Amino acid sequence: MKRSIYDEDHEAFRASVREFLERSVLPHVEQHARDKALPREFWLEAGKQGFLGLEIPEEYGGVAAGDYRFNAVLLEELNKVNAALGSCVGIHADIVAPYLVELTTPAQRERWLPGVASGEILAAIGMTEPSGGSDLAALKTTAVRDGDGWVLNGSKTFITNGYSADLVVVAARTSPEKKARGITLFGVETKAEGFSRGRKLDKVGQDESDTAELFFENLRVSDDDIVGELDNGFIHMMQNLPQERLGCAISNLAHAKQILLETLDYVKERKAFGAPVGSFQHNKFLLAELVTQVDVTQAYVDECVVAHAAGELTPIDAAKAKWWTSQVQNEVLDHCVQLHGGYGFMNEYRVARAWRDARVSKIWAGSNEIMKELIGRDLGL
Amino acid sequence: MKRSIYDEDHEAFRASVREFLERSVLPHVEQHARDKALPREFWLEAGKQGFLGLEIPEEYGGVAAGDYRFNAVLLEELNKVNAALGSCVGIHADIVAPYLVELTTPAQRERWLPGVASGEILAAIGMTEPSGGSDLAALKTTAVRDGDGWVLNGSKTFITNGYSADLVVVAARTSPEKKARGITLFGVETKAEGFSRGRKLDKVGQDESDTAELFFENLRVSDDDIVGELDNGFIHMMQNLPQERLGCAISNLAHAKQILLETLDYVKERKAFGAPVGSFQHNKFLLAELVTQVDVTQAYVDECVVAHAAGELTPIDAAKAKWWTSQVQNEVLDHCVQLHGGYGFMNEYRVARAWRDARVSKIWAGSNEIMKELIGRDLGL
Amino acid sequence: MKRSIYDEDHEAFRASVREFLERSVLPHVEQHARDKALPREFWLEAGKQGFLGLEIPEEYGGVAAGDYRFNAVLLEELNKVNAALGSCVGIHADIVAPYLVELTTPAQRERWLPGVASGEILAAIGMTEPSGGSDLAALKTTAVRDGDGWVLNGSKTFITNGYSADLVVVAARTSPEKKARGITLFGVETKAEGFSRGRKLDKVGQDESDTAELFFENLRVSDDDIVGELDNGFIHMMQNLPQERLGCAISNLAHAKQILLETLDYVKERKAFGAPVGSFQHNKFLLAELVTQVDVTQAYVDECVVAHAAGELTPIDAAKAKWWTSQVQNEVLDHCVQLHGGYGFMNEYRVARAWRDARVSKIWAGSNEIMKELIGRDLGL
Amino acid sequence: MKRSIYDEDHEAFRASVREFLERSVLPHVEQHARDKALPREFWLEAGKQGFLGLEIPEEYGGVAAGDYRFNAVLLEELNKVNAALGSCVGIHADIVAPYLVELTTPAQRERWLPGVASGEILAAIGMTEPSGGSDLAALKTTAVRDGDGWVLNGSKTFITNGYSADLVVVAARTSPEKKARGITLFGVETKAEGFSRGRKLDKVGQDESDTAELFFENLRVSDDDIVGELDNGFIHMMQNLPQERLGCAISNLAHAKQILLETLDYVKERKAFGAPVGSFQHNKFLLAELVTQVDVTQAYVDECVVAHAAGELTPIDAAKAKWWTSQVQNEVLDHCVQLHGGYGFMNEYRVARAWRDARVSKIWAGSNEIMKELIGRDLGL
Repeated sequence: MKRSIYDEDHEAFRASVREFLERSVLPHVEQHARDKALPREFWLEAGKQGFLGLEIPEEYGGVAAGDYRFNAVLLEELNKVNAALGSCVGIHADIVAPYLVELTTPAQRERWLPGVASGEILAAIGMTEPSGGSDLAALKTTAVRDGDGWVLNGSKTFITNGYSADLVVVAARTSPEKKARGITLFGVETKAEGFSRGRKLDKVGQDESDTAELFFENLRVSDDDIVGELDNGFIHMMQNLPQERLGCAISNLAHAKQILLETLDYVKERKAFGAPVGSFQHNKFLLAELVTQVDVTQAYVDECVVAHAAGELTPIDAAKAKWWTSQVQNEVLDHCVQLHGGYGFMNEYRVARAWRDARVSKIWAGSNEIMKELIGRDLGL
Repeated sequence: MKRSIYDEDHEAFRASVREFLERSVLPHVEQHARDKALPREFWLEAGKQGFLGLEIPEEYGGVAAGDYRFNAVLLEELNKVNAALGSCVGIHADIVAPYLVELTTPAQRERWLPGVASGEILAAIGMTEPSGGSDLAALKTTAVRDGDGWVLNGSKTFITNGYSADLVVVAARTSPEKKARGITLFGVETKAEGFSRGRKLDKVGQDESDTAELFFENLRVSDDDIVGELDNGFIHMMQNLPQERLGCAISNLAHAKQILLETLDYVKERKAFGAPVGSFQHNKFLLAELVTQVDVTQAYVDECVVAHAAGELTPIDAAKAKWWTSQVQNEVLDHCVQLHGGYGFMNEYRVARAWRDARVSKIWAGSNEIMKELIGRDLGL
Repeated sequence: MKRSIYDEDHEAFRASVREFLERSVLPHVEQHARDKALPREFWLEAGKQGFLGLEIPEEYGGVAAGDYRFNAVLLEELNKVNAALGSCVGIHADIVAPYLVELTTPAQRERWLPGVASGEILAAIGMTEPSGGSDLAALKTTAVRDGDGWVLNGSKTFITNGYSADLVVVAARTSPEKKARGITLFGVETKAEGFSRGRKLDKVGQDESDTAELFFENLRVSDDDIVGELDNGFIHMMQNLPQERLGCAISNLAHAKQILLETLDYVKERKAFGAPVGSFQHNKFLLAELVTQVDVTQAYVDECVVAHAAGELTPIDAAKAKWWTSQVQNEVLDHCVQLHGGYGFMNEYRVARAWRDARVSKIWAGSNEIMKELIGRDLGL
Repeated sequence: MKRSIYDEDHEAFRASVREFLERSVLPHVEQHARDKALPREFWLEAGKQGFLGLEIPEEYGGVAAGDYRFNAVLLEELNKVNAALGSCVGIHADIVAPYLVELTTPAQRERWLPGVASGEILAAIGMTEPSGGSDLAALKTTAVRDGDGWVLNGSKTFITNGYSADLVVVAARTSPEKKARGITLFGVETKAEGFSRGRKLDKVGQDESDTAELFFENLRVSDDDIVGELDNGFIHMMQNLPQERLGCAISNLAHAKQILLETLDYVKERKAFGAPVGSFQHNKFLLAELVTQVDVTQAYVDECVVAHAAGELTPIDAAKAKWWTSQVQNEVLDHCVQLHGGYGFMNEYRVARAWRDARVSKIWAGSNEIMKELIGRDLGL
């Protein structure tokens, strides 16, 4: 079904993103994968194009699009190239930027936003810890009051952009006795003393993103580094959940849909037993199912995008979009691999990488199990 | 997610449908099931309320709603009561009526439409044959030219409303050598000589609908009984496919959603091992999944409804909606049965009947396999 | 794969069962369905043939087969006719008989076993209660000491053979304070004062079996009616679980396999679009999958049968067999319905009835959820 | 369920394999992955232990076990370490060796078998071609008569052991007009002029195996290099299918089962929200399902092993085992990844690698689609 949520402006923006990707990114993806990271030039150029500042006011160098559909278009196009690109930019521009825009003081905005918009300050977010997974109540990183500042100790893991980041929004426990209500967010600059990182993690997929473990050892931060209110970090994080989950959903689906389209081309070309692979009824029905699944899911994601653009998306509806799309994505891609036969197992084929890339989408950003728990609670169960 | 496709008029119409159903139908559903048919009083009263004439011009007693969303609301509410109700009214008012409105001569409209709108002429459509299933090219019923009329011979099966119908739109082969392009539609009145019916079929579900085999033995029809153009029946049928499939999709989903909501109530009440059944994590996650599946699917169906109301729904998008919703419906209902434990196997429970009712939705109106074949072809496979 | 667990004796026994079924049962199954019960003549003749006494010593009129593989053969052949037949005979001869043989006094054996073996005493087992489902700890039926006897009050539901039974082994709470360890089994004769039954339950499937709710109102039983030890009913029931679950597993699979074979015949005969339905690749692959699924499952069930014949089957391995086979059975039959097209929705087709019959197998005898809970616990989770 | 197909001798053999693996392989698996190959020392030591000569007569340095259950034990233990180990040894000792034993002349046996048994001659098999996948009728590699020899031209791809192999059994077309009946097998030594190989393929998984494309450019072979009969290669390959497919099945299941056991340990240790991850009901049920699935499948595989040890396994039953186990393996491992949370996406975790390794099992050795096609044909469809 023809999608109806985008107008000409969105499509013009899409064309500009695509042009940028074709020119500046596609020729280098192999290098990104080998480096296990996007180079700074990528960030700077994306910044120059205005792609990193959709959420950022113009006075700080952003473009303040004010319409989430532009974010959606950006995520779609990035994910058509590869999922890591979508993740890295998503974390920086779609997830961290709102914290820095909405919760910060004028001084903080001055300090951070221009660099985030330009790509000079690469941002990450530090929530997950080695021992805790999605359970914020178990947060072990602490920020202890010391004079007029705070001393941070602990570690974070699975941090996208973590190896290259200049600025990490870190969740730390400031009032241990208050459990989830005693968590504060700090903007931690990675040049600070006491900050260190582990090696780039060797992941199953998303080779092009740098993911790392971060360590804080007696790292000093001040009140000026607090993002939002003291002890109110949990609430701040909750408020960003709809956008975070929706970003995942848009990405998951765009990623799978792109590879499905490429697979459709492949099965029309590739022959076996004297006929195109796609002409065998089993494959034909399978592809009909996959296309249906993607179309149906797109309708829901689009509905969520429109709702979010209107400020009405609930965290629960976003949770549904997140888990469902990741399921669809993984199922679709697994079938796409199979339709490629042996080539589907070779990393030089995009489908093979996409399959590896997708696996994490059922795990991160609140695992699908967490999403179902939340939806279940919302049902009164 | 809150649905956005209906406005106040649609909701007012919904309220009137509901009022009618609560007053005139709900008290009698057990009787319908025992009779394996809806009584004529039902049809007459529905007619009086204007529910049978949404597609019919006012001059012929209809209400000419001119907005398919009213049809959608009607189907949703009927299916909340039970699926048979939706099927019977759907065939009469949503599927046959358009043939009689769009393809007929003024004389035919005069002859048939007032009765169809009032419920005095109960309508059915006769396509499927015992030997042929969904394969129109294999149609065996023939209409042979004889003088200035036609002699009809053959049989049709699985005809919803077939046992009670007054008027059946019958597809018959008029030019055997022209295969699918030699089929003509006839409006056959069941009082005609040569018409007979088998007993009411004993179905797995949809107890409340009468389904029958129809026989034509040297039944004479005239040129005045031809619906549409001679030899053009196949094309006529194709043109009504989007609405037919979409009607199925709306019905399938509304049916499943209603029972899912009832099941949600049930699992909050019903206790096992000292706790509500719905509080067990396995069930909680399952229900979260089912609700997500229904919400996602609703977004797609709604998109189709809007497209169809604008005259833009393609037969392929409708095919996607048809097979997907029937799959969702059956999966959801199977889980709802399981969540009811032993009571789910007892016919006095609505969930048990709904489960039986739903099974046919994957088979009829073009089986899901046919839908996938068509979608696959549309993909160029 | 050719099965290897049966020898010539088992196959000779199978032939005798088959001969009996063809002669005495097949001509009457329609009547059974209409009556919602097997007639007493069936039981008497089955008794005469020795089919009800496989578990019963010869001195009490049984044949004391002493090899569970004969039970397995019997269940297989019964289920090939229909699932209700398997359930009714299974409850009587495979589930209740062992209680009466293993836990009883010589006087009780004298009193009950000859009738059970001959079919003159039709047996049922009363565990499940309206409010409690599979939760024995929540058992509400009580037996209160009164003089030298007991007064039974309560009710049981979903009791297979319940409407016709002469003897019901009833689980009742004798020591309320001892929870699961305060349950006693009583042999309750249904001619006793204070015993009554509800109507035959109107079930989704297994039309041929009579299932009923049973009521005990100040029904007096004596110590002589206690089956096994006072307060030890829970343990007694536990000990019979492997056989109960294995009986389900054998039945589930034999039932599905038979219909699958019939469906294979059907799809070779039935044509669509000019070719046998089974020749379409989608159906061909599907049938290949179903046959594989059945073969794989048969290997496990056979392994369980051999283990049980050697007295080594654990309740957990039997639980695996129970839930898995019921899942396979329902999946296989759902596809078999689909392969029959519209006829699969008509009760006159065996596949339609089989589909309805099978639904309960995921629910009863400890629902599949209970099975998974038990297996999970056994894994140390 | 306790497996019953192995006796003390098999278990003693298992212990010796395990001892070898722990001593000589486990310390080096990281190196194997980095090298994308097993080193020659591995092969030589495995040869010294007799593990490469189970199929080879003693006179040629083998141990001629004469009981396929030893092969099964070997494959199980190798796959517990990792799937690539199983694949590489399987190709060499379980798949190629039988060709060299059964189809060869005494001179050929003398020339090749001692080296294959000792590990000095590493063997591979060259069937699959870049353009042809599983379709032997489309074989493009040709061997053209030239004087008293043959000139080989063409290429093969996805050849396990291909980069290191000393001897490749190559299928080439000798009588183009005879289609599948014009294929001959040649023992091609890789030191021959005209032989070359591509780089080690960069695969999604099975990092430890070397897989390569092979090229034959005017490579001269003689009649003495023909394995089996001229033009009879297709039949020769068919005859080895049961063992090939069964080897896959054994491997697939042993691989998944090992990781499932490790995951069970993990979920008992790993905590979230204050409780072991495995104690959450959703996970508990899931693990119960996975364990059941593995146990059920093991029963079938064991039945196949016993049948094959008796020389009675059909290619069709082996095809069922192949596709089914690969499906189970991939499903089980996908869930195991999920149960590890973020760590499941990290290559340092065994579960992550196992997940990648497993993907190919649905594709190679005749894709699952091919298996279903064959099973379907065998059903007469």
